[in-house]
Amino acid sequence: MADDASRIVTLTTDFGHKDPYVGVVKGIILSRFPQAQIVDLNHEIPPFDILAGAWSLKISVPYFKAGTIHIAVIDPRVGTKQRRIALELPDCIILAPDNGLTTPFIAGAKKAYALEKPQFFLSSVSNTFHARDVFAPVAVRLLSGIALRDLAVEVDKSSLTVIEGLEPKVQGGEIEGTIVYIDRYGNLITNICAETKPQIKEIRIGSRLLKLAVGSYDTIDDGDAQVLCGSHGYLEIAAKEASAQALLNVSSGEKVTIRTD
Amino acid sequence: MADDASRIVTLTTDFGHKDPYVGVVKGIILSRFPQAQIVDLNHEIPPFDILAGAWSLKISVPYFKAGTIHIAVIDPRVGTKQRRIALELPDCIILAPDNGLTTPFIAGAKKAYALEKPQFFLSSVSNTFHARDVFAPVAVRLLSGIALRDLAVEVDKSSLTVIEGLEPKVQGGEIEGTIVYIDRYGNLITNICAETKPQIKEIRIGSRLLKLAVGSYDTIDDGDAQVLCGSHGYLEIAAKEASAQALLNVSSGEKVTIRTD
Amino acid sequence: MADDASRIVTLTTDFGHKDPYVGVVKGIILSRFPQAQIVDLNHEIPPFDILAGAWSLKISVPYFKAGTIHIAVIDPRVGTKQRRIALELPDCIILAPDNGLTTPFIAGAKKAYALEKPQFFLSSVSNTFHARDVFAPVAVRLLSGIALRDLAVEVDKSSLTVIEGLEPKVQGGEIEGTIVYIDRYGNLITNICAETKPQIKEIRIGSRLLKLAVGSYDTIDDGDAQVLCGSHGYLEIAAKEASAQALLNVSSGEKVTIRTD
Repeated sequence: MADDASRIVTLTTDFGHKDPYVGVVKGIILSRFPQAQIVDLNHEIPPFDILAGAWSLKISVPYFKAGTIHIAVIDPRVGTKQRRIALELPDCIILAPDNGLTTPFIAGAKKAYALEKPQFFLSSVSNTFHARDVFAPVAVRLLSGIALRDLAVEVDKSSLTVIEGLEPKVQGGEIEGTIVYIDRYGNLITNICAETKPQIKEIRIGSRLLKLAVGSYDTIDDGDAQVLCGSHGYLEIAAKEASAQALLNVSSGEKVTIRTD
Repeated sequence: MADDASRIVTLTTDFGHKDPYVGVVKGIILSRFPQAQIVDLNHEIPPFDILAGAWSLKISVPYFKAGTIHIAVIDPRVGTKQRRIALELPDCIILAPDNGLTTPFIAGAKKAYALEKPQFFLSSVSNTFHARDVFAPVAVRLLSGIALRDLAVEVDKSSLTVIEGLEPKVQGGEIEGTIVYIDRYGNLITNICAETKPQIKEIRIGSRLLKLAVGSYDTIDDGDAQVLCGSHGYLEIAAKEASAQALLNVSSGEKVTIRTD
Repeated sequence: MADDASRIVTLTTDFGHKDPYVGVVKGIILSRFPQAQIVDLNHEIPPFDILAGAWSLKISVPYFKAGTIHIAVIDPRVGTKQRRIALELPDCIILAPDNGLTTPFIAGAKKAYALEKPQFFLSSVSNTFHARDVFAPVAVRLLSGIALRDLAVEVDKSSLTVIEGLEPKVQGGEIEGTIVYIDRYGNLITNICAETKPQIKEIRIGSRLLKLAVGSYDTIDDGDAQVLCGSHGYLEIAAKEASAQALLNVSSGEKVTIRTD
């Protein structure tokens, strides 16, 4: 592996921070490839929430250098016949179960592979912990310079599982978006592009009409939840030093509708 | 230190993630030995829960390469006359207070040492933060290649504190195990070997009879909590996309009884 | 950058652990300067709590080697005209918004700078995520060996925002301190120097009189919250295997008064 190659491996899981599971995955990787640089991207995806996991990946992957390996494991069906896949993008590789987690990246992927060569896994593969037994050992082979085509079996991109909800629906002068992610601050992050903001005539969450904020969090009226352009390029409903989620009492998956004409 | 030597230091604590305590320990280590690779194994051991800490170590340590240094600090009696110890295993070293945390490793240890040479600690040792003042500086000396026998005083293995509850009790055709750990998903992890599963005639938690699941989480009946082989080689009571802990309303320490005849 | 130079970058934020925000900041840094060693100092500063952030920095920074770069971002006013600053201390650099976070370090700083040269930021700077868009890229330049005076514009130290509450008030025989930080264990950490302890005639929180503990947590009477010398050199109100915060039902900001004559 050349000196300027990336040795970054990111982890996106719903494993949380209260167990040794993430640490054990790191043990597998660092024990076999000590030069790896492991970045915890997100371990607090709500358990089994594939949409939130896909969104978290979508907004994070672009900030990593070429060659980065992204491992994403939110996997309620671990241990079934569900495939484990590797998606080869122009400048990175994503390893994940084939359950829709990689949806945002499929269109732009060069090739897709199924991980089904047990010689590259831990010698004993459990039914419940493939991050440790399958994905981490495969990442180690990739770091060591083995090509994906030698580690896995190419499959048709169109055979991969995709999930709904990552793209808004546009019909005439109406856009129907979704709250795809709620962050620590209670910011409600939608799947509607920030560039839409100047065209908004009216924006509602459920039946509640929302105001547009002028700029940053600080410009939002006290006690109100308003719409601004989030840092990842999507419209976001936020409050000033308060939680928009608590103010509006909404959950992930809630619809946001915009009238543009 | 040879190039292929491990520079991995793992941390297992009840420090949580809301304070700078873990970061300061890392500062001590990386400021003195920049090549160290520090892995957070678990910082959310319930405060003062030595059994959960011992279990977390037991299932994690095997995944790290030879030469790894494991620091474990769950230490309600910090600052008393309780000893700080180092356990030398065939392929790694564990640093911990002498309060039972190292119980799973004592039988297999080559030697045990007491850390009582203050010249290897921070110059001022507090009564309340030995991870920073004692264990981290000692780990730095080990990383730097100083032998444990020079850093510490050998003691008899049999003098170390051990805790109960890590091993099930087997009597005739009955096994009495314990819920030793509850993970983020609400999986109830027992101390009973997974190999026991085929011999199970009946398994109960309290008075409640449990079903055996066929394979992975996905095969568990909706709304039920059932028994499967966990990824670390022990029987586990789990639910399908739900928390077995919430379904059964049990706590750590609860007994699980098996009839095998 | 010389071989013995620090490549440590610490992060102190209120970003929490449930989002990919911290991981993305690490992606920016490691993608551009792979040798960086990033230490999570604290990401669970209560949202917008600048006092807790300043305190967490104050007690942590001394444990890092010369040359460390500390990034601190608790920033409710992100995206306003508030300056982003760099504080040059004798042996480290702190990057932060100019909102009081750096208060404990201003007196000892050599120079202060405003970060206002956009050529050193990400090409597009959002209104809501300056850790990623401003502070991380500036840290990368510093790691790469560019001097702060070339990256930023010197400003007068006296122009920096300072916050109240980090120092106790001493008047005659009375010291009025503040609970500046509450940790995971429910320990109530005051801003009153531990050296004060021998002079204490009487210590109260609100109207409640407190006892002085003799030494470590273990010496505190069961069920009581008592005063001891915390590991960072300040008086701390703690309980034995219990939460002093829960026992006393107090919040951060509460006053602690001492009579010394």
